[in-house]
Amino acid sequence: MKKNIPKVYFQGTRGAYSEVAAFTYFDSHIETIGTKRFEDTIDAINYDSEAYAILPIENSLMGSIHRNYDLLLTNEVWIVAEVELRITYNLFGICSKEDINEIWAHPAVLEQCRNFLAENSNCRAVSFFDSAGAAEVVVRENRKDVGIIAGPQAGTIYGLKTLREQIEDHKMNFTRFLILSKRKKIYAGNDAKSSLVFGVKNEPGILFRSLSIFALRNIDLIKLESRPIVGKPWEYIFYIDFRGSIAQEHCRNAVDNLGEVSVYYKFLGSYQVIKEPK
Amino acid sequence: MKKNIPKVYFQGTRGAYSEVAAFTYFDSHIETIGTKRFEDTIDAINYDSEAYAILPIENSLMGSIHRNYDLLLTNEVWIVAEVELRITYNLFGICSKEDINEIWAHPAVLEQCRNFLAENSNCRAVSFFDSAGAAEVVVRENRKDVGIIAGPQAGTIYGLKTLREQIEDHKMNFTRFLILSKRKKIYAGNDAKSSLVFGVKNEPGILFRSLSIFALRNIDLIKLESRPIVGKPWEYIFYIDFRGSIAQEHCRNAVDNLGEVSVYYKFLGSYQVIKEPK
Repeated sequence: MKKNIPKVYFQGTRGAYSEVAAFTYFDSHIETIGTKRFEDTIDAINYDSEAYAILPIENSLMGSIHRNYDLLLTNEVWIVAEVELRITYNLFGICSKEDINEIWAHPAVLEQCRNFLAENSNCRAVSFFDSAGAAEVVVRENRKDVGIIAGPQAGTIYGLKTLREQIEDHKMNFTRFLILSKRKKIYAGNDAKSSLVFGVKNEPGILFRSLSIFALRNIDLIKLESRPIVGKPWEYIFYIDFRGSIAQEHCRNAVDNLGEVSVYYKFLGSYQVIKEPK
Repeated sequence: MKKNIPKVYFQGTRGAYSEVAAFTYFDSHIETIGTKRFEDTIDAINYDSEAYAILPIENSLMGSIHRNYDLLLTNEVWIVAEVELRITYNLFGICSKEDINEIWAHPAVLEQCRNFLAENSNCRAVSFFDSAGAAEVVVRENRKDVGIIAGPQAGTIYGLKTLREQIEDHKMNFTRFLILSKRKKIYAGNDAKSSLVFGVKNEPGILFRSLSIFALRNIDLIKLESRPIVGKPWEYIFYIDFRGSIAQEHCRNAVDNLGEVSVYYKFLGSYQVIKEPK
């Protein structure tokens, strides 16, 4: 039995970028467990409260992953860290590139490699739910006519040859992942980032007044995201990321102030942002 | 040849809510033309500049339809009206409800009728790309074992019997649709709503300063939505809806002011909001 090794739940299969992000934060002394859906990832730590969950929250090209924002609201979890990864894709196979006439990948991955697919229009693009499953079929059936697009880690894990590197359309393609825990842990470093969600009364100027709480203390808002409230058409809750930690007095005061003007608020954590692999 | 009858492009097939929204605004003296993708809908009026395009922009449960926000930015179009519809779903078939053991619908529709499907777990839920196609198969193959979930208009158009009404999970389910034209048309009524998109320099407090332009003139912001900028990770453009028309001086001044502090802005229109069928 493994002891004292943190368990980290992620959505996807071995080699997925969420798993790479987990290794980036924790180094390799963790046990990673893939789940089918994002809901399952976060639900796992509701039952296994010593474990961590990792969720992608935003991609720099596609935007916010709203269903995961919603999960932050409906689950009692704390953000303990953020990991930012550059997303690149390789073409893998068990042959040479000239032999392939089909390319298998997740639909979202095909979407991000449109230019490469257009340049290789002799190859039919086929949607595949997960790269692990695709790799398994290719190896088992000795499919020398098939290429697979996946992240660099994924192809290597499944023992495929790299046929072409960095075939994604946009090089400025980054994803932010949040590491979540049931246990509160406030990071107090100068580089801290904090997140919270709040709801306001539906009255003119209320969002402006809410933001003024941060502006008058020179707190830098990094992101503002609105989400609909189920059952209250055209009313919203707002997710805010700001620079600073609630271990700092001016940030603590701002959050307290927001409590006064909002009808609802939930503090999600003060945490460190990791941008490069350790 | 039809003359002087406006053409309205919508995404989907006959009976789709986008088509219902078009009839709600224009009454029945229009020619509606379904397209495959949202991109095709808006592209159609780039070629047929006398025509209109209609796009859903936000659902009160699911949130904004971000790909359509992106299309407002990348196409030269004006918003000439907004239509808000309540979304309900019926169960249709060519038999009685007791006979069916499969239910076919678009995945997004299945998602909105989860409770009904759970109560009828003896029926297998099957994803179908469009209700027209599903209805055609049911009628042609005389499938008495199949029910179809679709909007009230869709089932009737395809000659199906209504087996059950209003089976959606949430009754407060509304969608806002935008009617788009290549020709500028400013609505100046007291109930006008306006939309614009703007980009700001990536500096602390800039969003607050931008919003202050509206706050100091008591202009009510209805909605604020952020979208990523491709190639500039974690920088955003903002879509704003506010009450008023740029035919009014205080709104015109606000928009001019925004031009001074933003690095980019595009005014999308001042228009009327239609909430009930005529």
